[in-house]
Amino acid sequence: MASRRDSRPDSPAAAPDLGADMMRLAAELFPICRSITGDGLRQSLRILGRHIKLDLTEVPSGTAVFDWTVPREWSIRGAYVERLDGTRVIDFSANNLHIVQYSKSIDAVLPVEELRRHLHSLPERPDWIPYRTSYYNETWGFCLTHRQLETITDDRYRVVIDSSLAAGSLTYGECLIPGESNDEVLLSCHVCHPSLANDNLSGMVVATMLARHLQQTRRRFTYRFLFIPGTIGSITWLARNEARVGQIRHGLVLSCLGDSGGMTYKQSRQSDAAIDRIVAHVMRHEPGQHRVVPFVPYGYDERQYCSPGFDLPVGCLMRTPNGEYAEYHSSADNLSLLRPKSLAHSLGVLQRIVDVIEGEATYRSLNPKGEPQLGRRGLYATMGGQSSAGAGQMALLWVMNLADGRHSLLDVAERAGLPFAAIRTAADALAGAGLLDPAS
Amino acid sequence: MASRRDSRPDSPAAAPDLGADMMRLAAELFPICRSITGDGLRQSLRILGRHIKLDLTEVPSGTAVFDWTVPREWSIRGAYVERLDGTRVIDFSANNLHIVQYSKSIDAVLPVEELRRHLHSLPERPDWIPYRTSYYNETWGFCLTHRQLETITDDRYRVVIDSSLAAGSLTYGECLIPGESNDEVLLSCHVCHPSLANDNLSGMVVATMLARHLQQTRRRFTYRFLFIPGTIGSITWLARNEARVGQIRHGLVLSCLGDSGGMTYKQSRQSDAAIDRIVAHVMRHEPGQHRVVPFVPYGYDERQYCSPGFDLPVGCLMRTPNGEYAEYHSSADNLSLLRPKSLAHSLGVLQRIVDVIEGEATYRSLNPKGEPQLGRRGLYATMGGQSSAGAGQMALLWVMNLADGRHSLLDVAERAGLPFAAIRTAADALAGAGLLDPAS
Amino acid sequence: MASRRDSRPDSPAAAPDLGADMMRLAAELFPICRSITGDGLRQSLRILGRHIKLDLTEVPSGTAVFDWTVPREWSIRGAYVERLDGTRVIDFSANNLHIVQYSKSIDAVLPVEELRRHLHSLPERPDWIPYRTSYYNETWGFCLTHRQLETITDDRYRVVIDSSLAAGSLTYGECLIPGESNDEVLLSCHVCHPSLANDNLSGMVVATMLARHLQQTRRRFTYRFLFIPGTIGSITWLARNEARVGQIRHGLVLSCLGDSGGMTYKQSRQSDAAIDRIVAHVMRHEPGQHRVVPFVPYGYDERQYCSPGFDLPVGCLMRTPNGEYAEYHSSADNLSLLRPKSLAHSLGVLQRIVDVIEGEATYRSLNPKGEPQLGRRGLYATMGGQSSAGAGQMALLWVMNLADGRHSLLDVAERAGLPFAAIRTAADALAGAGLLDPAS
Repeated sequence: MASRRDSRPDSPAAAPDLGADMMRLAAELFPICRSITGDGLRQSLRILGRHIKLDLTEVPSGTAVFDWTVPREWSIRGAYVERLDGTRVIDFSANNLHIVQYSKSIDAVLPVEELRRHLHSLPERPDWIPYRTSYYNETWGFCLTHRQLETITDDRYRVVIDSSLAAGSLTYGECLIPGESNDEVLLSCHVCHPSLANDNLSGMVVATMLARHLQQTRRRFTYRFLFIPGTIGSITWLARNEARVGQIRHGLVLSCLGDSGGMTYKQSRQSDAAIDRIVAHVMRHEPGQHRVVPFVPYGYDERQYCSPGFDLPVGCLMRTPNGEYAEYHSSADNLSLLRPKSLAHSLGVLQRIVDVIEGEATYRSLNPKGEPQLGRRGLYATMGGQSSAGAGQMALLWVMNLADGRHSLLDVAERAGLPFAAIRTAADALAGAGLLDPAS
Repeated sequence: MASRRDSRPDSPAAAPDLGADMMRLAAELFPICRSITGDGLRQSLRILGRHIKLDLTEVPSGTAVFDWTVPREWSIRGAYVERLDGTRVIDFSANNLHIVQYSKSIDAVLPVEELRRHLHSLPERPDWIPYRTSYYNETWGFCLTHRQLETITDDRYRVVIDSSLAAGSLTYGECLIPGESNDEVLLSCHVCHPSLANDNLSGMVVATMLARHLQQTRRRFTYRFLFIPGTIGSITWLARNEARVGQIRHGLVLSCLGDSGGMTYKQSRQSDAAIDRIVAHVMRHEPGQHRVVPFVPYGYDERQYCSPGFDLPVGCLMRTPNGEYAEYHSSADNLSLLRPKSLAHSLGVLQRIVDVIEGEATYRSLNPKGEPQLGRRGLYATMGGQSSAGAGQMALLWVMNLADGRHSLLDVAERAGLPFAAIRTAADALAGAGLLDPAS
Repeated sequence: MASRRDSRPDSPAAAPDLGADMMRLAAELFPICRSITGDGLRQSLRILGRHIKLDLTEVPSGTAVFDWTVPREWSIRGAYVERLDGTRVIDFSANNLHIVQYSKSIDAVLPVEELRRHLHSLPERPDWIPYRTSYYNETWGFCLTHRQLETITDDRYRVVIDSSLAAGSLTYGECLIPGESNDEVLLSCHVCHPSLANDNLSGMVVATMLARHLQQTRRRFTYRFLFIPGTIGSITWLARNEARVGQIRHGLVLSCLGDSGGMTYKQSRQSDAAIDRIVAHVMRHEPGQHRVVPFVPYGYDERQYCSPGFDLPVGCLMRTPNGEYAEYHSSADNLSLLRPKSLAHSLGVLQRIVDVIEGEATYRSLNPKGEPQLGRRGLYATMGGQSSAGAGQMALLWVMNLADGRHSLLDVAERAGLPFAAIRTAADALAGAGLLDPAS
């Protein structure tokens, strides 16, 4: 229980350190220009690999993965727009977001009207640079602040993009932590965004810290962490691991876990999978606000895990969801948006989710007729007549009352309105007193 | 989609014309003295038969229909109450409602106390004449305004009713519009009320216009419109068509469709029949207020269709329900209560209900594992990174995600929170791209 | 229906008398020092036995009952604490609550610090004496007002308890009222509290009066009333009657039925047993506030009846529940807390619950196709056209509409929103008219 306390945002003890560790890792990753393929992605995975045992897989360009094809590898060396007098008005070296991802090479002097068709800004957020991609439609473009756009008034500009699209490979990282059982828990985050902090350096660092934590002890379940480029990465992994998918008992996509908002859980497509109940239960017992929202086929890689041919029990854990915070997919989603306490709390919530996954079990009472005499086993108040029983006492009574082989401990916790940890503790005490047997 | 727009009350285009057409038809029918049998009923059906192919059935008086017997035919030629000096104080020729329906013949001078026992007024609405009937209990009576009643202070009055109750027949009209399938959609309205506009000239004219509309195109379902006297008419039809009842897949009773109130849908007895879901869905996407109310065994002919021996999936579509507007069953339910826009909107809602009935289908994805690459089929935005997807994009994603052979398009529409038409359009596009197959 | 009216709290007629009767019985029982065994308990049961046929069972100390053992019999003759000058500061003869139940014998002079470890008061209610027990942990103790406690400032006190714990028996009372069927209704109340009025003299007197009422007429069900010491009594009865438990169709634990609060029904562990629906239905049609609360494995003997090895359909009927009123388990839960009208109303509610238990049935319409012509059977208004039907008319229509062999009369009452009695009356009229048959 101590470790649980420590990871809460309102805890003054360990959380700040853990939060600071995660901030440092995010800061190290932030400047790298990641995309769905390429060296920035590989470099980022190697940094994560210093904290956890991470296996990298390279899938060659052109590989067919279900309805898709692994794309060519994109490399970007430099890009700028300059006045004919050589003054640069947009320069990729200033911000990774200035270039539309997968822009093709160009070196040309263009009339301003033609240039403008390739420029993207946010008129309502004139100081922010948007993030834009064109992975599957060959074009080029620059993103810039609206204030910059307003200065582009010359007749002609020189446009230079020094990039290449060439056969290579798609890279993803995998961290497998074996447990007593082959049943798997899947944790997946996307790693393809350049210089965007909450979406999704936050997911990457929280996933890394959770994996590091799980590596330290033997668990019942096998845990599989995927660090993959969005959409094409999960489709590629699914295509290459179709036979393994049946082992997945629970799963979560992790994203947007560092902002100051409350937790949001997006349910799996099934909506009543065990993971849906588990996360809702854990969040209900957290301090502060939280939301459970239904599955929609838009968002992150849950779109692929929850496609009808797989329909996996995979939800998505976030704080403020994609598209619901102003800074989303812009240069304002930078390190200043991350809160150490939020990162630490997100990690704590995930640890408590894992505690339920690991501790969930169903028991049968060995004394089902009437209550057992808990008092002579030291499990009941000796002085009778008080107005009510404490939570510990109630947890013991609830576990005994519902130990009928049909109610799991999570069922008990939900019906009792008590946190799973209290019910798990009571079940341990009762099993220790010889009053419970695991249900076959 | 254009025709859909046009029929909404807020649409300036076609609706006024259609509404005006329906007002003209209602005005033509209003003066006729209808009852559950007789010439007024026949004359009304003949007028409707100028707009649609209407078959008239005559069922002889005395025919046993389940627990009932087809009554004798009632004819009313004249009726009045006069002072002994010959001044008429109530005269049927002034308003069809003045006579209690099925009043027997009388010509007598009566003491005022005896007369009063046969007079019906509305003390709280002193200027309105109530509508009263006594089909199955032989008596006579007059309905009058409360102001009229207050002038009836002489000692004795002459009472004359020139009516007849004689063997004849019960008449109903039927309009059958065959479709590709023998599965039927039943639309039923009562046609037995004299000079009452909302209840139920509105139902008669809306049903007529819907039938005229459906006659123009080939449909999947067969549509059967019944124009029948209330209660005895539906019981008679059911008794004569018992073998055919099993073909009815969906049904609606139509009444009170012309007043200025919002739509009301009264569910079938089953409460979760397809028609119940369809109407609720369509109403949810209409502008303005609407209500869904549970089945009660009181109201219109849904009482018979939903009797336990049939339990048909038949609801009742209304604007303001029977008994819930002040003018109900009184002389104030006249043509001035009808709104052309309401009639047109009611018709539009019915057309959209038919669109769902016709367009409902279940598909199976031909690319169920991961999402298909919609972009290379021109079905996805080419520039990535935007904060959210539009409704058209979401409709495509929802259809693909739920195309598992277990979710119908209505299921998809409800889960997506989008109108059925948008989902149907998306399914057509995806089927056109070879991504969907009908579920067997 | 008259008797029903009379038992309501707002009825000026019979209720006061019945309430006064119950108050007198409670007053007679109040001074007796009851415990879970012993003469006070026997004396109380003998008093109840003057009103109903009550069989007493004696179960010897040491008898094994499931996980428990019937305890020794406790007798208390006197107890006090006095200053060394002989002034008594606590005296059991002043209030039965002064002694911790099952206190062992002692006669000693003790330092005040040691004495204080055996004293129990309520600092926030300084004028009330708490009620405390230690049945299964051998100790001794006194309960006193906090004001008394504050005067205990001498260095040493003499402590005398003249009690005995000796082999004897546990006593319980049983009143069996046979019905046409062996199916049983169980009504259980605890009788072990000394000088506490709402908890549970109220339960004892209401149960007694209900049994007296049921003894007067022949019923469909067999009714079994248990008057038992809490926990050990129900466990003992269950252990001795295990074979009989399967006959129990409905059950209620009765407690806290005399205070001024609204009714509270605590559901059975099953939560959807017939008794749960029946009590909720009856309460919904009572005047005033009421609450339905879910089962929790804390409270009264429903804990034992609803243990997983029995899981009986037994709820608990109360007004203000245990622990939710300030006076609970203190000297302030005395006769002044009881309201004659509340006792009478609680009894009335129980009678109406019994009426539903007895009257519940399922019918099949003999005229399921269309409505039967109720008018020619004198069951329908003869003059048509009114705006709405009355409750009696609606009850007839609802019963006919749902007489499909799948809906019980309680189902009908709930769907119709009418009290069960109205539905039962309608069913009788329809059965009398030959329109209904009992469903096999």
